[in-house]
Amino acid sequence: MTYSRPTPLLDRVTWPRDFRNFSLEQLAQLSDEVRLFLINTVAKTGGHFASGLGTVELTVALHHVFDTPKDLIVWDVGHQTYPHKILTGRKDRLATIRQKGGLSGFTNRTESEYDVFNAAHASTAISAALGMAVARDYKGEGSHVIAVIGDGALTGGVAMEGLNQAGYLKRKLIVILNDNDMSISPNVGAISGYLLRIARGQIYNRVRADVAAILKKLPGGDRLAGFAEHLEDGLKKALVPGTLFEELGFEYMGPIDGHSIPVLVRTLKEARAKEGPVLLHVRTVKGKGYELAEKDPVFWHGPSPFKVETGEIPKKSAPPSYTTTFAETLISLGEKDERIVGITAAMPEGTGIDLFAKRFPSRAFDVGICEQHAVLFAAGMATQGYKPVCAIYSTFLQRAYDQIMHDVCLMDLPVVFALDRGGLVGADGPTHHGAFDLTYLRVFPNMQVGAPKDENELRQMIAAALESSHPTAVRYPRGNGWGVAMDPEIRPLSIGKAEVLRIGKDGVVLAIGDPVIPSLRAAEKLAASGGPSLTVINARWVKPMDREVIAQFVKPATKVVTVEENALAGGFGAAVLEVLEQLDIAARVRRLGIPDRFVPHGTQAELRHDLGLDEEGLLSSFRDHFEGKKAGVVPLAPVSRAS
Amino acid sequence: MTYSRPTPLLDRVTWPRDFRNFSLEQLAQLSDEVRLFLINTVAKTGGHFASGLGTVELTVALHHVFDTPKDLIVWDVGHQTYPHKILTGRKDRLATIRQKGGLSGFTNRTESEYDVFNAAHASTAISAALGMAVARDYKGEGSHVIAVIGDGALTGGVAMEGLNQAGYLKRKLIVILNDNDMSISPNVGAISGYLLRIARGQIYNRVRADVAAILKKLPGGDRLAGFAEHLEDGLKKALVPGTLFEELGFEYMGPIDGHSIPVLVRTLKEARAKEGPVLLHVRTVKGKGYELAEKDPVFWHGPSPFKVETGEIPKKSAPPSYTTTFAETLISLGEKDERIVGITAAMPEGTGIDLFAKRFPSRAFDVGICEQHAVLFAAGMATQGYKPVCAIYSTFLQRAYDQIMHDVCLMDLPVVFALDRGGLVGADGPTHHGAFDLTYLRVFPNMQVGAPKDENELRQMIAAALESSHPTAVRYPRGNGWGVAMDPEIRPLSIGKAEVLRIGKDGVVLAIGDPVIPSLRAAEKLAASGGPSLTVINARWVKPMDREVIAQFVKPATKVVTVEENALAGGFGAAVLEVLEQLDIAARVRRLGIPDRFVPHGTQAELRHDLGLDEEGLLSSFRDHFEGKKAGVVPLAPVSRAS
Repeated sequence: MTYSRPTPLLDRVTWPRDFRNFSLEQLAQLSDEVRLFLINTVAKTGGHFASGLGTVELTVALHHVFDTPKDLIVWDVGHQTYPHKILTGRKDRLATIRQKGGLSGFTNRTESEYDVFNAAHASTAISAALGMAVARDYKGEGSHVIAVIGDGALTGGVAMEGLNQAGYLKRKLIVILNDNDMSISPNVGAISGYLLRIARGQIYNRVRADVAAILKKLPGGDRLAGFAEHLEDGLKKALVPGTLFEELGFEYMGPIDGHSIPVLVRTLKEARAKEGPVLLHVRTVKGKGYELAEKDPVFWHGPSPFKVETGEIPKKSAPPSYTTTFAETLISLGEKDERIVGITAAMPEGTGIDLFAKRFPSRAFDVGICEQHAVLFAAGMATQGYKPVCAIYSTFLQRAYDQIMHDVCLMDLPVVFALDRGGLVGADGPTHHGAFDLTYLRVFPNMQVGAPKDENELRQMIAAALESSHPTAVRYPRGNGWGVAMDPEIRPLSIGKAEVLRIGKDGVVLAIGDPVIPSLRAAEKLAASGGPSLTVINARWVKPMDREVIAQFVKPATKVVTVEENALAGGFGAAVLEVLEQLDIAARVRRLGIPDRFVPHGTQAELRHDLGLDEEGLLSSFRDHFEGKKAGVVPLAPVSRAS
Repeated sequence: MTYSRPTPLLDRVTWPRDFRNFSLEQLAQLSDEVRLFLINTVAKTGGHFASGLGTVELTVALHHVFDTPKDLIVWDVGHQTYPHKILTGRKDRLATIRQKGGLSGFTNRTESEYDVFNAAHASTAISAALGMAVARDYKGEGSHVIAVIGDGALTGGVAMEGLNQAGYLKRKLIVILNDNDMSISPNVGAISGYLLRIARGQIYNRVRADVAAILKKLPGGDRLAGFAEHLEDGLKKALVPGTLFEELGFEYMGPIDGHSIPVLVRTLKEARAKEGPVLLHVRTVKGKGYELAEKDPVFWHGPSPFKVETGEIPKKSAPPSYTTTFAETLISLGEKDERIVGITAAMPEGTGIDLFAKRFPSRAFDVGICEQHAVLFAAGMATQGYKPVCAIYSTFLQRAYDQIMHDVCLMDLPVVFALDRGGLVGADGPTHHGAFDLTYLRVFPNMQVGAPKDENELRQMIAAALESSHPTAVRYPRGNGWGVAMDPEIRPLSIGKAEVLRIGKDGVVLAIGDPVIPSLRAAEKLAASGGPSLTVINARWVKPMDREVIAQFVKPATKVVTVEENALAGGFGAAVLEVLEQLDIAARVRRLGIPDRFVPHGTQAELRHDLGLDEEGLLSSFRDHFEGKKAGVVPLAPVSRAS
């Protein structure tokens, strides 16, 4: 198959209005061309891929049938919206996707009026769409609101919350269930099994068998049993499939083939004419139209740039990723302690729990997209003496904020939280940056929070967390480690103890996590260039914080810089200020970290540079603060320190 | 009916083993006695009432049939567990419930080995129980795990997440659905309707009607239609009720009468013998056995002490509660702006949204126990130009932490959050204190966060929030206002502007929210007694914070005390430290607030006293800090302030 064919129809299309009058044949051809365009673009740029391939026809049909942007399409998650972007005025910019200054990898209200709601965290579309439907009814408008949600996202409790109220309020609302048996990984959970049974006709068959059995038991039943077969159409319509959604107050339609333009257009028009809430079950194939992606949609969920004809992805050699190091650590510790259990919320590959699961199949759980449940499930196990490790991205663990407080910290249960993607994540942008975790975790009593400076320390911290009898969170960045030497054995760190990396007389740098090494390098450059000589401390733990080392090195009037890849509000630097206040040390502090705004997408290196959190930026800030160039910064007179 | 009968069987019962050999008749009598004991005790102490009355027989039957505490009962929410406490060694202490040093109003692991999981926030039991079931299977034990969850709690998405995985894992697990058509308020949502239809037999009837209609359409169908009636038993078993749960992988049992000991004991024994996950649907009456509570279970959910024979509750005269003030404000502003919409998550009375709903029925929504959905629903409306107000208790809004960040702040949508029960709530204890909100809300870009010093300021802040085009949270305490004069008109406050209440030369007190008035009074007493004269500033807004007023009054070496009823970690005081760092003002700060531990239950006055947050405690801390008695606190030499 060649991927260099022309795209004559797509070339004429910029906006949905350009294909509202297309025939079904033209729409099918347009779909093919969109798919081709998508394949060729993502092959160059990398990005979300398999999801978008699965929604090409659906997207074409939606914008053909509905009067967007007056009619509102709310896309759940949003990584399936590349076709939507192509067809809503952003075709020419698709090659900029996920790059600094370019298109977002998700829907974004500031990018287009066709993006009516930002998305990225799953399972939000139904609830938001219901709010829009209520607003529409207030205005007395006749417009349509459509939520498009994947079957994977249905495992998120908030999706069920949305269905529950939507079925109750009975507003006009179309929920399209994009069912491909997948979240990023193959789907799990009972609802997923239910949808699969619908798709395979098993539910209908089971009911038919039940009815046949009942009829047989009646007097003269044998004669009647034959009729059961004739009940097919009627029963199917009256009873199955979709009972679950019907019981929740939705009219169920489907399942239909999500790659057939005629079926989609006809069914969407039918759905459009309904008065109450409708659930349209659309079956799609993730990766559709790119054979390799169809075969392995997990790998092709979001590939790096690849050779389109062969699917080859140029490999880069690099130190092991933090994710891999975490996984290997957990496996290694798991060999010695069978109480260790790994839990992931629909991110087995992303968190490394896939590797743990391969080694210990019965001790690993992918619970689906439901972080709240993941944490509670872990808490339940911890009450029984087990050592559950919740490996969840920093940004997604926000979903379980209340469970961390109410169901773990309050009972002081030894659940371990492994927060991958702490700090700036890069191309996924503001919805995915792990910018708030040091703040949100350290506020809870009993919680311990650490962030390693490198991949070797990650191993030591995970070991420490698993030895502790308190809830302990370890957060580490997306991407590769520093390539440091790894200890032959994994030894646990002392919780609450910092590490002094360098001693200088002119000030103190307190850093945590990924910025520790750049901070040390910057301090060494500063000293080498004849500038101030700084003490550099790897804080390691935000909580409990090492007060002793702070008291030892920070005296009244000492100049201090704190460095973190977390929001400055309430983060590590704020925790240092709190300790200094408690110790009554009036130091001269400057905090470096993520300022009070959402950071856009870009590479991690670009973003760190922009925020002054790379070596160069840190050096500049160190000069600024410690050389006292900043206007008005005058050393304080020394005072005695409070006991 | 007299409530002063003897309780001969209960007098012999301390632990479940004491009634494991009881006959059904004895168990029924024991239930009556437990109910009597409960009524008489809560009449004296006040506390959760109607829920416990509904679970008396269920509790007796559970502890009779199951080998507790080896078998694990996980109670959801926990306010229905007074009978459980009575029967598990705590009968003699029940009169201490919710009082300082007494029993908790919820389950509590530190209180009894029969309390296997702490609860209070709803919808957690299934997930926690599943974790325990997995642990049990690891150990190869044959014990039973039972989750008891109300129908109201099923609207919480995490309950559905738990069902979804439990149905998938197929572990031996008993989920008891305690169905009384209520959360604290009458239940809402499609699932609730579904359960009600099961209870009324309507689902069965609908299916029967469908089948009859189908049969009629077949050739010779008229003749067959008569058979439909004979299908009754078989169809009921094969198809209904409980399909929804069956599709989720559970074996459905019920519905059964939750007040019949013989039915309960028999059915629980049946459930105990099943191998996979079972959902047992038990119908109960909230308030059962106390007529007034049966008639008005909302009012009798958690009454103050009452006269048991008459139900009379002695009234205390008091200034209007913050809740009432909020409600009246919202109604008043709602008269002028029809874009204002009120949203509550199953707390219409607790938040005052009930009053708004009475005035504007079509502009108020009780979405059920689902804070995540509530916030998303509001966000959807806000995208369409509406002004949704999410009125949710501080502690429960933790459930929507991710939605606040990802679905409101990131899009900078003007959703208003009205956080009732901010700070120390009193008798409900650590699960309910709103101790973390100032920290968790201020970390997000675009968010504005205020806390009024009194009920008049609450009105002004709500008005300001509704005029703002950014997300704005206003948090206020549980209980009555100060009885201050109310402005005749509601004028919005300037967002980000503090109020200087008192000017003194010897130091600065920066306070926020409820502690402002006690701080002012303490400062006045201090001055009147010849002590230091303090400036007292009502900060009003944690974010944006009034830097100008801080820069005006706080100079290098100025002594400052901050006061808040929030966790010290990352809270208001920490935000002040951050501002001082940014302004490069080396002041001498001491922060007062909630320390890094969970605060137990007790009255608000007792807890504030214990934490030094009442007038007396504040006065003592002011003396300590401003009179410089603390060892080592020496005034700093003045330095120039950075620009």
